[in-house]
Amino acid sequence: MEGVHPMVMQRLLETNLEQTTGYGSDGYCEHARQLIRHSLGDDSLDVHFLVGGTQTNSTVIDAILCRNEAVLSAETGHINVHEAGAVEGWGHKIITLPSHSGKISAIELKSLIDSFYSDDTYTHMVPPGMLYISYPTEYGTLYSKSELEQIHSVCKDAGIPLFIDGARLGYGLTSDSCDISIAELPKLCDVFYIGGTKVGLLFGECVVARKGLLKNFFPQTVKRHGALLAKGRLLGVQFETLFTPQENGQPLYLEISRHAVSLAMELKKGFIEHGYRPFIDSPTNQQFFVLPNSVIEHLREHASFENWGAPGKEESQVRFVTSWATRPEDVKELLDLL
Amino acid sequence: MEGVHPMVMQRLLETNLEQTTGYGSDGYCEHARQLIRHSLGDDSLDVHFLVGGTQTNSTVIDAILCRNEAVLSAETGHINVHEAGAVEGWGHKIITLPSHSGKISAIELKSLIDSFYSDDTYTHMVPPGMLYISYPTEYGTLYSKSELEQIHSVCKDAGIPLFIDGARLGYGLTSDSCDISIAELPKLCDVFYIGGTKVGLLFGECVVARKGLLKNFFPQTVKRHGALLAKGRLLGVQFETLFTPQENGQPLYLEISRHAVSLAMELKKGFIEHGYRPFIDSPTNQQFFVLPNSVIEHLREHASFENWGAPGKEESQVRFVTSWATRPEDVKELLDLL
Amino acid sequence: MEGVHPMVMQRLLETNLEQTTGYGSDGYCEHARQLIRHSLGDDSLDVHFLVGGTQTNSTVIDAILCRNEAVLSAETGHINVHEAGAVEGWGHKIITLPSHSGKISAIELKSLIDSFYSDDTYTHMVPPGMLYISYPTEYGTLYSKSELEQIHSVCKDAGIPLFIDGARLGYGLTSDSCDISIAELPKLCDVFYIGGTKVGLLFGECVVARKGLLKNFFPQTVKRHGALLAKGRLLGVQFETLFTPQENGQPLYLEISRHAVSLAMELKKGFIEHGYRPFIDSPTNQQFFVLPNSVIEHLREHASFENWGAPGKEESQVRFVTSWATRPEDVKELLDLL
Amino acid sequence: MEGVHPMVMQRLLETNLEQTTGYGSDGYCEHARQLIRHSLGDDSLDVHFLVGGTQTNSTVIDAILCRNEAVLSAETGHINVHEAGAVEGWGHKIITLPSHSGKISAIELKSLIDSFYSDDTYTHMVPPGMLYISYPTEYGTLYSKSELEQIHSVCKDAGIPLFIDGARLGYGLTSDSCDISIAELPKLCDVFYIGGTKVGLLFGECVVARKGLLKNFFPQTVKRHGALLAKGRLLGVQFETLFTPQENGQPLYLEISRHAVSLAMELKKGFIEHGYRPFIDSPTNQQFFVLPNSVIEHLREHASFENWGAPGKEESQVRFVTSWATRPEDVKELLDLL
Repeated sequence: MEGVHPMVMQRLLETNLEQTTGYGSDGYCEHARQLIRHSLGDDSLDVHFLVGGTQTNSTVIDAILCRNEAVLSAETGHINVHEAGAVEGWGHKIITLPSHSGKISAIELKSLIDSFYSDDTYTHMVPPGMLYISYPTEYGTLYSKSELEQIHSVCKDAGIPLFIDGARLGYGLTSDSCDISIAELPKLCDVFYIGGTKVGLLFGECVVARKGLLKNFFPQTVKRHGALLAKGRLLGVQFETLFTPQENGQPLYLEISRHAVSLAMELKKGFIEHGYRPFIDSPTNQQFFVLPNSVIEHLREHASFENWGAPGKEESQVRFVTSWATRPEDVKELLDLL
Repeated sequence: MEGVHPMVMQRLLETNLEQTTGYGSDGYCEHARQLIRHSLGDDSLDVHFLVGGTQTNSTVIDAILCRNEAVLSAETGHINVHEAGAVEGWGHKIITLPSHSGKISAIELKSLIDSFYSDDTYTHMVPPGMLYISYPTEYGTLYSKSELEQIHSVCKDAGIPLFIDGARLGYGLTSDSCDISIAELPKLCDVFYIGGTKVGLLFGECVVARKGLLKNFFPQTVKRHGALLAKGRLLGVQFETLFTPQENGQPLYLEISRHAVSLAMELKKGFIEHGYRPFIDSPTNQQFFVLPNSVIEHLREHASFENWGAPGKEESQVRFVTSWATRPEDVKELLDLL
Repeated sequence: MEGVHPMVMQRLLETNLEQTTGYGSDGYCEHARQLIRHSLGDDSLDVHFLVGGTQTNSTVIDAILCRNEAVLSAETGHINVHEAGAVEGWGHKIITLPSHSGKISAIELKSLIDSFYSDDTYTHMVPPGMLYISYPTEYGTLYSKSELEQIHSVCKDAGIPLFIDGARLGYGLTSDSCDISIAELPKLCDVFYIGGTKVGLLFGECVVARKGLLKNFFPQTVKRHGALLAKGRLLGVQFETLFTPQENGQPLYLEISRHAVSLAMELKKGFIEHGYRPFIDSPTNQQFFVLPNSVIEHLREHASFENWGAPGKEESQVRFVTSWATRPEDVKELLDLL
Repeated sequence: MEGVHPMVMQRLLETNLEQTTGYGSDGYCEHARQLIRHSLGDDSLDVHFLVGGTQTNSTVIDAILCRNEAVLSAETGHINVHEAGAVEGWGHKIITLPSHSGKISAIELKSLIDSFYSDDTYTHMVPPGMLYISYPTEYGTLYSKSELEQIHSVCKDAGIPLFIDGARLGYGLTSDSCDISIAELPKLCDVFYIGGTKVGLLFGECVVARKGLLKNFFPQTVKRHGALLAKGRLLGVQFETLFTPQENGQPLYLEISRHAVSLAMELKKGFIEHGYRPFIDSPTNQQFFVLPNSVIEHLREHASFENWGAPGKEESQVRFVTSWATRPEDVKELLDLL
């Protein structure tokens, strides 16, 4: 991974010796919040900046759930697999739903909730208190607008908020398979975050919630989770740059995301042309292939990518990830190695 | 449910106005611990008395796990389904294994543990810290001795303790399908408990652990969990009675358990003879049938039993439970209603 | 300590083989709730039965506080000193107030709350979410009605509930120094409990809350804390007996409490007559004296009492406790030993 | 507050587009760890980088304590006052010691520990599991070497680790009143951290522990606390710069700290010369004065400083803080305003 997008670095440099107040109370944060609300077309939204993804997930979930409630998640959800038990560390159960290439189904969700309340022993069980999904998912897949509407509708009927983990949000919104715009997102859920760490920033995740959802003690929850950045303006300066409209009227955030997705599509096409099989059909910046172990070994000498799960005997599952910083020649070079 | 076995009530009555010290430091508790160690054939065992099952599970698990570790459990395990999130409330994740009529498989267990450590991202995951199984399971089924040995062997190789929830232990040990004796149990796991609440007592669960497993701060853990009974001798008097050998040399605990299992077998035979299908083939005191809703309604006027999961449209799953207090005529009467 | 008051034992015996539903849904619990509401003169009160004191404190506090809030307590409060960190175990901070022989001051309470919100950095601090006091206190002392009114008034102004730990409630209400009746208690606080473990029962604490305070998920909180007694009717039968009016129209609870307090007063008078100094002037069933270590050693051969804090070189602080079961001759015998 | 020291910014800029692995496994982190071990004169030390102070405190404390143990702290300790209950959020009690201008006393510490174990009821209490102190303290004061040795000696006798919060470490080590060197620190405690956020960095705290203290699951604890920075090399690059020896052989960290302390001394001298009273005699970069409210109002128009506690009627306590970025002319300007 690289550091930060050069335009953001430039702004950090320019503002470095300015004096501001701390903890997010400065003008940069305020301006960034305005730009983001503007991009989302809703001035009433509640906007907060945090540092990292696991931290954001555990803070938002802990702020929303009552002590007794569980968060629902696909069994492949990041909070269930790769956050070292942060959600449970704060006392909350994760109830899992089947994962369909990383996605949950509105029907299975409704069925789980209905079963809960028709069970005689439900006072011995943990009531669903919110739903967590990721967009794109951990497998690079995307919900359609209609799927999101159905899921949100089940949540509303059950009175539980829908939380979307957008650690890779840009790479979803700029996929050819995406049928929603960023401005539609606040209507399709109750709270989500715009991932910056994976999309051009040094670090930073921007939580967007419908007004009133994150109760008035949210700042204390953030502090309690060790998630309050002392020099909060670093988040403001970074997100301000990401959400300042470029010449074409689009925020930098979407521009650089589109670049990564486009290279991922080339990479995918190349692998398929060389006869390799994607085990997930991802339309975003993560690409998943089954490769012979010998090929994996060969590629590892030149490129960095991950095993996905435990390796197999003859062939293994691997994941390639492009980013705002990937260059066309990097993809070409990799494909040439095949 | 009834209260307590009459012989136990008699002893509570006889000892009621005696003065003893509190919190389990009295002579009755000490004597009960000796009787239990004697029944188990091992004087080195660590024996503690607690009040209820959920409390015992969450206290033992919290005492054994490091903050960062997870407890493994069948997805149908009581701790995962019916304890209102107590384990997570104390900060611990439950990682689930597939349930085969309530039982886990040693092979799937081994595979889960192996995968964990061969995963490159395991420092982002929750390491398995102990295994929880129940005997009998929540579905009335039993592990064979050989299955327990295999499971324990996987645990030992992985360096994680095996904990057996024995809330209904007596009803397992006295089943015709059981191929282990109570004295073999301490060798087949690291810690287990002898359930009293469901087997003849007002309340009470007896935790038995190999020496050294429950660290020296266990008493503080018990207190911290609100699980320390002030008049601890009530547990001592009750378990003393249960584990005093009867004329036939057997503890009362096993005698009254055998009675319940034998009536459960009659009940099962009767249902099957009437053409009803058990959806789990349970050799212990819980019996599970699929019955037409009309039959269920009819039986409910005379008997108390539970729906198992959400009811179906035409027929539903139900659970019948016998106990030390069930009378042969109760079973006969129920079968006559069919 | 003895077991249970003989009239309660008698009822347990009579009802032992009856069959009822579990978990407090039976008729005995319901009748006991009615009797208690009747004694308190308010049919709208929410009444729940739990097993022990630490359990009750940690369950009620966890049910009322938001994750981010602290409970305020005298630094000598039971929850702060003698509950093995149960409150913190569930994630809540205890903020301490100075203890004046076990009591807090309304003025110091108000000052603490006022300071909190006038502090610029309060988003980095834990907001007060409820107040915990005990009646009688851990030092046997009592708040006057006027003191309780002032404290409650500060709480109401701050929007935080007042919780009274009544583990020894009866021994307070029947003291000559007490200027409130049991029926006034629900108006002087938001939630309290009527201690049974220390006042005549095998075990049992009865939580009384103003309607709506304990949110609808309270039963799940109780289960989650391992505090749900399977054979819940044992609590119903016991409290029913305690709150059935006797010939004089008074509930047994108060009658047996008065007995203990009256003997404590004799004990206190006797110690003072023998020239020993109470280090706390307690009007209830706990009595605190400074005694020469030689006297302590002598008394220990015949009586059971506790050191209060670490022993001194020449003399030490000790605590004597009378109960419903103490006999006049016991007190006389102790005093004769002096 | 400003951003980051220009030399650090320069390095971030130079390395920005390099590709490295994430999560602290890169070469910059490794090199920074080496430089820090070298500065401390002990190659066996365990070195970890985290993002912020509250996060570091709660992660280290949670990693060291058993579930049942408490951390001891001055009642004015940052973890007890200004971290929004993070330590309790992870289940741990803080037991407080009296604060003497922010410092604890070895004698009072020993007395607290001794009392604990001589108390008959200690199994109902929370055992001390570690000690937390800050250097400099929250009041800018410093422990002498001899005081640290005495405190550490009490800890060692009690078998509990001593943890030093060094959020402002540099400003302590470079004070004229300091009688220890950075290389002596690892011998005077068991774990400490070198604060970067307040001493020249964008963010970053460097935890240094004696080998073996932070158990092997520390990386999972960090992740679980949401404290694992994805682009970990940002911490490596920053600390590498701070600990690269300058021309005079000293790390930049100490040079820039000395600058801040020296300006703080000028500021203090100036206030005293103008007749104002420091309410704490701090030899480090924080300075505390009692000022008339009219003066405070006047200064606020030109300078940024904090009320310390709730304001008084006529005069209030305020805190001034200098940093690596404060300029001599800033101090002069402030004093001129007096």
